[in-house]
Amino acid sequence: MSTPSFQPKLARRSQNLQASFIREILKITAQKDVISFAGGLPNPAFFPVDAIKDATAKVLSADGPNVLQYTVTEGYRPLKEFIANRYAEKNGVQLTPEEILITNGSQQGMDLIGKLMLNPGDELLVEDPSFIGAIQAFGIFEPTFVPVLLEQDGMNTEALEQMLRQTNANLCYTVPNYQNPTGFTYSKEKREAIARLLQQHEVLMVEDNPYGEINFTGRQYPSFQSLYPEGTLLMGSFSKTVSPGMRMGWITAPVDLMEKLVIIKQAADTHSNYFAQRVLHQYLSDNDLDLHIAGITEAYQLQCKTMVSAIEQYFPEAVKVSVPDGGMFIWGELPVHLDARDFFQRAIQRKVAFVPAQAFYAQGNVKHTFRLNFSNTVPELIEEGIQRLGDCLKELLSGQKN
Amino acid sequence: MSTPSFQPKLARRSQNLQASFIREILKITAQKDVISFAGGLPNPAFFPVDAIKDATAKVLSADGPNVLQYTVTEGYRPLKEFIANRYAEKNGVQLTPEEILITNGSQQGMDLIGKLMLNPGDELLVEDPSFIGAIQAFGIFEPTFVPVLLEQDGMNTEALEQMLRQTNANLCYTVPNYQNPTGFTYSKEKREAIARLLQQHEVLMVEDNPYGEINFTGRQYPSFQSLYPEGTLLMGSFSKTVSPGMRMGWITAPVDLMEKLVIIKQAADTHSNYFAQRVLHQYLSDNDLDLHIAGITEAYQLQCKTMVSAIEQYFPEAVKVSVPDGGMFIWGELPVHLDARDFFQRAIQRKVAFVPAQAFYAQGNVKHTFRLNFSNTVPELIEEGIQRLGDCLKELLSGQKN
Repeated sequence: MSTPSFQPKLARRSQNLQASFIREILKITAQKDVISFAGGLPNPAFFPVDAIKDATAKVLSADGPNVLQYTVTEGYRPLKEFIANRYAEKNGVQLTPEEILITNGSQQGMDLIGKLMLNPGDELLVEDPSFIGAIQAFGIFEPTFVPVLLEQDGMNTEALEQMLRQTNANLCYTVPNYQNPTGFTYSKEKREAIARLLQQHEVLMVEDNPYGEINFTGRQYPSFQSLYPEGTLLMGSFSKTVSPGMRMGWITAPVDLMEKLVIIKQAADTHSNYFAQRVLHQYLSDNDLDLHIAGITEAYQLQCKTMVSAIEQYFPEAVKVSVPDGGMFIWGELPVHLDARDFFQRAIQRKVAFVPAQAFYAQGNVKHTFRLNFSNTVPELIEEGIQRLGDCLKELLSGQKN
Repeated sequence: MSTPSFQPKLARRSQNLQASFIREILKITAQKDVISFAGGLPNPAFFPVDAIKDATAKVLSADGPNVLQYTVTEGYRPLKEFIANRYAEKNGVQLTPEEILITNGSQQGMDLIGKLMLNPGDELLVEDPSFIGAIQAFGIFEPTFVPVLLEQDGMNTEALEQMLRQTNANLCYTVPNYQNPTGFTYSKEKREAIARLLQQHEVLMVEDNPYGEINFTGRQYPSFQSLYPEGTLLMGSFSKTVSPGMRMGWITAPVDLMEKLVIIKQAADTHSNYFAQRVLHQYLSDNDLDLHIAGITEAYQLQCKTMVSAIEQYFPEAVKVSVPDGGMFIWGELPVHLDARDFFQRAIQRKVAFVPAQAFYAQGNVKHTFRLNFSNTVPELIEEGIQRLGDCLKELLSGQKN
């Protein structure tokens, strides 16, 4: 390995880059004997391995050379039609394929939107706490994050209104369904109020919805895209329903913004993996996605229920948890004077991992909360892991030294 | 489709985005009866369709769930080992897997490097003419492009030295083998001189080498990475050798820069398509890449030769062309008072397309040059197309009105 004989001058945006805290945690917890509630991984038992194998063989046999060639930046049109049709059928969201761009997972959507919209110092409204991947992706463009208190039923609308008046923000980022990290879901009332506020202040909404289809209750609330179509950039993903390794997501935008997003995407990587787009589309054409998602949802709901029951049994009452209506995460709060990193240190000694949530707060000022993932652990281990966490919590609350 | 009731305030970098000229040309020339020398597409007849089908089945059978799961940002380590071993064997380039990052084609490498290195206004040394995809990717970060005359044997070293003295550039972008658009290849002497100059001025070299393996003569010159390992970011790609649709490229960098590039890549899209990384690696493990590339090279060399012979027969002498030692492009120059866009207008009426090269000059100040692609047209059509272009050129040179 070579080391530079000089220190290259980096762009300002790169001078304070820090490795993701979660990434570092995941390295610690990759050991085989750790029960990990830390990651945000789907359960691989539900990946449709054989159906993907069949879809690949079929699409390569039918159209081999084209499948491996360059394609248009916008993405495979029949895949975009599938997405548009599914929105119309399931969510009351009316979109044309021209308003959809295929991205490398929805993470790339945030990079493209950041490029489109953010000058250094621009104010960006985010939930507090917010998805850490969004803080990282938008952070590259050096905005000033404006955190707005996130409650069980969505952003606090008074706080949002105040921030809309006090700042020049032109962008607001939310995960309205089973949010990461909290699992919270916005109520119908808050959605309507927030859409009205953003419309009034001419602020674009970035509505990130990776978990919406993992719905335990059947209850469904209107998408911001349907309430505020002219100002919403809706992002979706096949990562939680089909396969995250294929990096297949999308953004939707009104056509005039879409034209610019396509140029930005072309400069970023020409187009998303076309081979994977075609395989995914063939899979979706030949299989019943609803049935597949029902299987995932049933399993995750059982895993969630197992975790909640174990928490009721083993956690001290002073520790509060929130039970989600879907998705992959349970949210926990220690008494406010305690630090979830101390809880983590104790837990890792007992071979259990989770994520202290400080890094999800754009200003890093809250230390007593934590995130538990239930999607990637079998029920038997969930109970064992929660029991060990309960022991750690009892020690922590009694002030026992670690 | 919805249109915004207001004009969202965009980032400064997005205000003057323009659709790629080549992209627009490709739309015009997509009609079936046009003979197109315009694109930069590999010949799909050489895509290893059956071998990719076998590799997919094999890798999904052996390790299905993992292949479809999230993975690390850095990329699949055995794929990086393959790349490192091939460099050691073929190019005398010594790299460890830790110095390699898998990207979505080498186009993404430029986006990541731009993010790492470029503040608005930073001076960026580029060949004149330069690869249009690089002008677009780096352009997002608003550098001041500093074009350096590109000659048949590489950048003019006096011009480079002058620009190194006159500017504060900290980055230089080149395509040293069978450059796009010119087909030019740097001589050994120029490589050594340029590496020394950059080293002396502490400027990083971005060495983009997508075409290096499509080598007609067997002649090979040292990589900048081997001459200046501490300051070179080398980019490569499987797009021209296996499949562009799979978007599998890489960048190499000294470890301290690589750490930052990985964080930037994570924020941009978490990781490159893992399914495709695993399929590609399986393909590379089970097949003879050298033999495969030899077949491509032989065919392209024949196509190139056919084009050159036809040019000698049909083009007027006042039009100069450069014959490349590899790659996919032939470079043409009209007498300097003529505009290649006029040539293009005549050609498209006769159902032949190519690329007027103005957009390849960062300052857009040269109008009489053009690029011909030979990789994506069968020999019979090459002769027919060049004959029609010859007719257009004779009219253009005789001053006949279009």
